Amino acid sequence: MKRGRWILPGDSAARLIDGVGLAKLIRGEIAADVAVLRGSGVTPGLTVVLVGDDAASAVYVGAKEKASREAGMAGETIRLPSATTQAQLLALVEQLNADASVHGILVQMPLPSHIDPDTVIRHIDPAKDVDGFHPINVGKLLIGHTDGFAPCTPSGVQRMLTHYGVETRGADCVVIGRSTIVGKPMAALMVQAGAGADATVTICHSRTRNLGDHTRRADILIVAAGRPRMVTADMVKPGAVVIDVGMNRIPDASTKSGTRLVGDVDFEGVRQVASLITPVPGGVGPMTIAMLLRNTVRSAQRTLVA
Amino acid sequence: MKRGRWILPGDSAARLIDGVGLAKLIRGEIAADVAVLRGSGVTPGLTVVLVGDDAASAVYVGAKEKASREAGMAGETIRLPSATTQAQLLALVEQLNADASVHGILVQMPLPSHIDPDTVIRHIDPAKDVDGFHPINVGKLLIGHTDGFAPCTPSGVQRMLTHYGVETRGADCVVIGRSTIVGKPMAALMVQAGAGADATVTICHSRTRNLGDHTRRADILIVAAGRPRMVTADMVKPGAVVIDVGMNRIPDASTKSGTRLVGDVDFEGVRQVASLITPVPGGVGPMTIAMLLRNTVRSAQRTLVA
Repeated sequence: MKRGRWILPGDSAARLIDGVGLAKLIRGEIAADVAVLRGSGVTPGLTVVLVGDDAASAVYVGAKEKASREAGMAGETIRLPSATTQAQLLALVEQLNADASVHGILVQMPLPSHIDPDTVIRHIDPAKDVDGFHPINVGKLLIGHTDGFAPCTPSGVQRMLTHYGVETRGADCVVIGRSTIVGKPMAALMVQAGAGADATVTICHSRTRNLGDHTRRADILIVAAGRPRMVTADMVKPGAVVIDVGMNRIPDASTKSGTRLVGDVDFEGVRQVASLITPVPGGVGPMTIAMLLRNTVRSAQRTLVA
Repeated sequence: MKRGRWILPGDSAARLIDGVGLAKLIRGEIAADVAVLRGSGVTPGLTVVLVGDDAASAVYVGAKEKASREAGMAGETIRLPSATTQAQLLALVEQLNADASVHGILVQMPLPSHIDPDTVIRHIDPAKDVDGFHPINVGKLLIGHTDGFAPCTPSGVQRMLTHYGVETRGADCVVIGRSTIVGKPMAALMVQAGAGADATVTICHSRTRNLGDHTRRADILIVAAGRPRMVTADMVKPGAVVIDVGMNRIPDASTKSGTRLVGDVDFEGVRQVASLITPVPGGVGPMTIAMLLRNTVRSAQRTLVA
């Protein structure tokens, strides 16, 4: 890390990472790739499966369908009632596995409690598992093989770091959170040999003692703990790069909805210490969908090569 | 970590971890499991495939066959000439995949340069991949699913820590090395929630800066760097548990062979600082074969349940 690289003289606040703008840039690249694929007779197809009527899930799914269509892809959402059985869902997955027009299959989580998510994930053809949650894709990620799919949020974070010129090689990268969706694959990405990685990686979690001792040595601090504003300014090394994966809705009487979206980082405090920081919203969030489209395009490209 | 737990008054040297004794204990447990399986009409079968005439590989393979037979298992080694083609090796693997008497398949590495090891590993039925190198088993390991196989050396190290009563929960565990065989799966094991794990894990490697700053905060230091005696006493926190996965042959004029086996840890120096330490040889080495047998027995047990 070139410490303080982003600090301008007389400016003590961190530079913001513009996730919205970067995601737009990537979606533009993807649209260009999609145009090439369509010229070869292949329209990348992303099918999202939504079971039940979880309100937040409906919003996410709508955003994914919209973004895929805007990129010129065939985006479809299959909505199933919450009473759908696991067998019915598995049958649908198998049908999508066999459908050559579908390059990406995403089963939106969480599923109703009578359906085992791991069983469903393992039924998805790994070659269409654009979420990157199938064990074989997780394994390829940890091994360092690039012929699988990396989960969207961690690969979005990595892309952000690369885009903003953050030196990752030899950097002290501390990840808070050990989920299968973010924390563990994030660590797996950053520890590999090669560009945009090669970091010394520490994974902290709920059992970590003296969390601040770890975060304070981080050149790059990636927070995916699911605890509103848990990372405060005193926990951050001056000049650090801080990536906030958290999305927490907290009460706020001053807003129309009575709630407000905040990250896992105390943004106002930490931005005074960090050199580069993601806002919430507008940071990591938009990147996740962009990487989902990127994975779907990659899947379609592989069908041409194969 | 209860620091200094293993230090006796007036005794400044670390207690030794007896890998030979522990491996013998585990092999005894395995022999009992094998007897039960044989009573049910199933003899666990481990088939090791050795391509070419690498001398070190021949020794390892012989030890694996011998240990499996001593545990009452059907241990077989298939020796192929170094001119074996990749297609021939893959055909053999497929034959072993289909053979119900074979519960574990191990293709000894390294393979001759005209054969791609990853292609071979991916051909092994994951349910018989007792080395735990197939991407689907690596993925299950990182996710935290226990229906795969964990690689033998890391799971042997974890078993050692558990056996010697080392508190891993919340411990600062630093792993040096990011290989797919040891470093990365070791970190994946230790970071999971649950007994024998739940550690805060850092992975260091050749790009790590200020390595000593990381190792000096480790409650548990696991070294798999492949560099003879690179970890010296000044790099170790007093009272730390030090696990040495290294096996390096260095010149030594005083021995008959003219060489000597040393680990990645400067044993004589570090034992004055650590509370618990593995010797080389006689530490991690014997555990690896024990865990290989354990995985093979587990594979056979699963065929009964399935």
